[in-house]
Amino acid sequence: MPDLAQLRPSSIAVVGASANPDSPGHDYLKCLVDFGFKGEVYPVHRREPEVLGLKAYPSLSDVPGAVEFVISVIPQEGILDLVEQAASKGVRAIQLFTGRFSETGREDAAELERELLQRARAAGIALIGPNCMGLHDPGWGLSFRPDLPRRLGSAAFISQSGNNTTEVLLHSDVRGVGYRMALSYGNALDVTEAHLLDYLADEDEVRVVGAYIEGARDGRAFLDALKRCAGAKPAVIFKGGRSSAGARSAVSHTAALAGSSDVWAAALRQAGAIQVRSQEELIDLLVAFELWGAPPGEVGRNVGAVGGGGGRAVATADACTDEGLAIPQLTDGIRAQLKERAPQLWDWVGNPVDQSILAGGGVSGAAILEMMLADPAFDLLIANVGEDWVLGRPDSGDRLLHLVNRFAEIGKKSDKPIAFVLGPADSPDEDRWRAVEGARTLLVDAGLAVFPTVERAAWSLRKYVDYWGGRSR
Amino acid sequence: MPDLAQLRPSSIAVVGASANPDSPGHDYLKCLVDFGFKGEVYPVHRREPEVLGLKAYPSLSDVPGAVEFVISVIPQEGILDLVEQAASKGVRAIQLFTGRFSETGREDAAELERELLQRARAAGIALIGPNCMGLHDPGWGLSFRPDLPRRLGSAAFISQSGNNTTEVLLHSDVRGVGYRMALSYGNALDVTEAHLLDYLADEDEVRVVGAYIEGARDGRAFLDALKRCAGAKPAVIFKGGRSSAGARSAVSHTAALAGSSDVWAAALRQAGAIQVRSQEELIDLLVAFELWGAPPGEVGRNVGAVGGGGGRAVATADACTDEGLAIPQLTDGIRAQLKERAPQLWDWVGNPVDQSILAGGGVSGAAILEMMLADPAFDLLIANVGEDWVLGRPDSGDRLLHLVNRFAEIGKKSDKPIAFVLGPADSPDEDRWRAVEGARTLLVDAGLAVFPTVERAAWSLRKYVDYWGGRSR
Repeated sequence: MPDLAQLRPSSIAVVGASANPDSPGHDYLKCLVDFGFKGEVYPVHRREPEVLGLKAYPSLSDVPGAVEFVISVIPQEGILDLVEQAASKGVRAIQLFTGRFSETGREDAAELERELLQRARAAGIALIGPNCMGLHDPGWGLSFRPDLPRRLGSAAFISQSGNNTTEVLLHSDVRGVGYRMALSYGNALDVTEAHLLDYLADEDEVRVVGAYIEGARDGRAFLDALKRCAGAKPAVIFKGGRSSAGARSAVSHTAALAGSSDVWAAALRQAGAIQVRSQEELIDLLVAFELWGAPPGEVGRNVGAVGGGGGRAVATADACTDEGLAIPQLTDGIRAQLKERAPQLWDWVGNPVDQSILAGGGVSGAAILEMMLADPAFDLLIANVGEDWVLGRPDSGDRLLHLVNRFAEIGKKSDKPIAFVLGPADSPDEDRWRAVEGARTLLVDAGLAVFPTVERAAWSLRKYVDYWGGRSR
Repeated sequence: MPDLAQLRPSSIAVVGASANPDSPGHDYLKCLVDFGFKGEVYPVHRREPEVLGLKAYPSLSDVPGAVEFVISVIPQEGILDLVEQAASKGVRAIQLFTGRFSETGREDAAELERELLQRARAAGIALIGPNCMGLHDPGWGLSFRPDLPRRLGSAAFISQSGNNTTEVLLHSDVRGVGYRMALSYGNALDVTEAHLLDYLADEDEVRVVGAYIEGARDGRAFLDALKRCAGAKPAVIFKGGRSSAGARSAVSHTAALAGSSDVWAAALRQAGAIQVRSQEELIDLLVAFELWGAPPGEVGRNVGAVGGGGGRAVATADACTDEGLAIPQLTDGIRAQLKERAPQLWDWVGNPVDQSILAGGGVSGAAILEMMLADPAFDLLIANVGEDWVLGRPDSGDRLLHLVNRFAEIGKKSDKPIAFVLGPADSPDEDRWRAVEGARTLLVDAGLAVFPTVERAAWSLRKYVDYWGGRSR
């Protein structure tokens, strides 16, 4: 079994380093600089004496010091020679951006891949990939693209797809998910999903694990590792290649054997993992599990909801019910408070709270949210920002910030999960974009979980309760 | 039955007009000015001689000319007096922002509502609402909020919720949906969903109808009208109050009796309408049906897909299969062209096309999209923009525009539906937002249908084929 302590090496050579900003050989090296990798960095370039201001070496063998970790960005023809040099240098792991192996469907390429594995194993070198983007570990100063987020946190994501790793990192970052590590591991020739899940199960800094998997190299090992991992922390699995066309596509992508969709679904369930069906669902659950954390005790299914107009109140109730959550009536305690503060409204307003009923009535949605947080009848909360209404009013930007600030203050003090609902800033209008992004950034900076629709909020709360509801802590 | 020709009046009085920009009495009047209403406009204000530069009158009775249509923004106490004045003036319709009637759950308010209806009927005045935002008809110069979109088109949307009307208009506008009319009709006291669907069935300018309905005032009339409407054009229904908590919420919102969810689902199906379960689904189908229009002939279920990396290719195949669409292999004709233009790749690349396989291979995803459009084996197309990859490259903005321009050129010439997939610009980074919004605006301005995820693209294509597939034209 490959030694995954190598994922945090103290010296790295980038073989195929390049000054051309439109090449991966540039990006890997640039990331080591930009993300602040603390160890030794050795660019390897056949001719250039220097790349990105760092002294370069014509070959790996020419590097003077010890090299623990190699990032290979060279074409596949040179790969066996590289392994030979790595073996002599005592290299412990090679990450292979290098691709065009078994995924091409060609016998000579598959044969080269087998040879590569055999030689690496003989030399005790772990292989990551081939055909992968590799590590993103901002806390260790490693990444594969200079524009990837620096946010640190307790999420981990492993994926057979490089593009989907990029997409997940970018779109979860803007929602506040920080990473202990992400890894695009391509063809999983040597380091497999099983090794990685096993490793992540034991990493205390990791609180939630996401994975995009096209096929398992070794079904038994995979399930054992997944069971360990899912027993220790939420494990969210996006299985690619569920359909026959998808499976065909997975073969040409990572040479993965996708397997039967039903078998996978049953196996994931049995292992205690959470299966998702899209990248959006995956991101929603990274947000939910990282930002809500583990509940302090038992967690029930009663939802209190505020914000948005009457249509949103109805949609919130329907969405929660669809997910098996309950929307109890307002309690006598809350009704008594409302009767005092809003005598015109107390017998009209319900749960979910229709914000438009409250207008001018002496009590705000935020105030009712606070009442719900203090009331044991409510386990989970939904706070609709309702920005589309606010943005039609004068001084809309300030109003929105005021409202969201109040929500953020309440949210920071809450020990119950709150799903804030704030739609996408999908507008060519700059003021709108600034207002909505500003509001979201404010919530995210307060460590709060934001969902773009009430349906996705309700679904995420349900998955959270499904996982944590009956678990002993 | 109310005469809905009154929805395009030639003279309008805004009773309760106001110069305070933070009031609906301001917004209605401002819209008549800003949206360019061509007829007579009469602000009515108890004291002010002028509102927003227009001569104002102390009461409706004081207005000198004829008034066809009244927008009422006064409190409910004055409503019977207003109806009396309206009757004397020969007013044909009153749109009531005025609320706090039966939706409050109070008997005196419900009694006032009944009295209102009786007096209006006696005077031959149609009532829109109460408790509604009313008309948005940019082609006729009418709206209820100055920031609502001006885009004209062939969609219609009717809704019992004012906020959701605003949200649907804003978020469908940025995706290219233009409106013949939208109407928030609140409590449906007089003008009901049945009248409106009947009216829209006959409106030739309307090609797709969306509706958010909490309850039907008259089940039989509703189903008859829906059947007529759905027989003439796609009718997309978002039913609010499917759950008991949602139904309870609907009562306090519009006093609607929501009815059994199963009965509704069966009835909608039987009427030939398309039921959606969220605002996002509703918007996706307005995009699909308006922008793709009716197909010229039979339309099958075979999807050709390009763009994005390997993970996206797999996800595209899975999503299409989940929706009952087929992902056929590339045809011999296309393979022959690929063999000529990309001899390194022709036997590796498949459908969906994995963009990362194509790198440097002599053929682009756009070129393969064109081959698919020309090949009768493909009925429907998905084009993943893959912006997250592009935006990590140098000159990313220009590259993205170049790629999207090429897609737009191809899309404009296509007589097959193409779903373009371009994620939300949900980033606090201004360059990213500009690039993604610029790309989307370019596609939208070319009249093309853009979806934020491949799952939503596949679902929308399926609903399109379900509706048009077996229909004679």
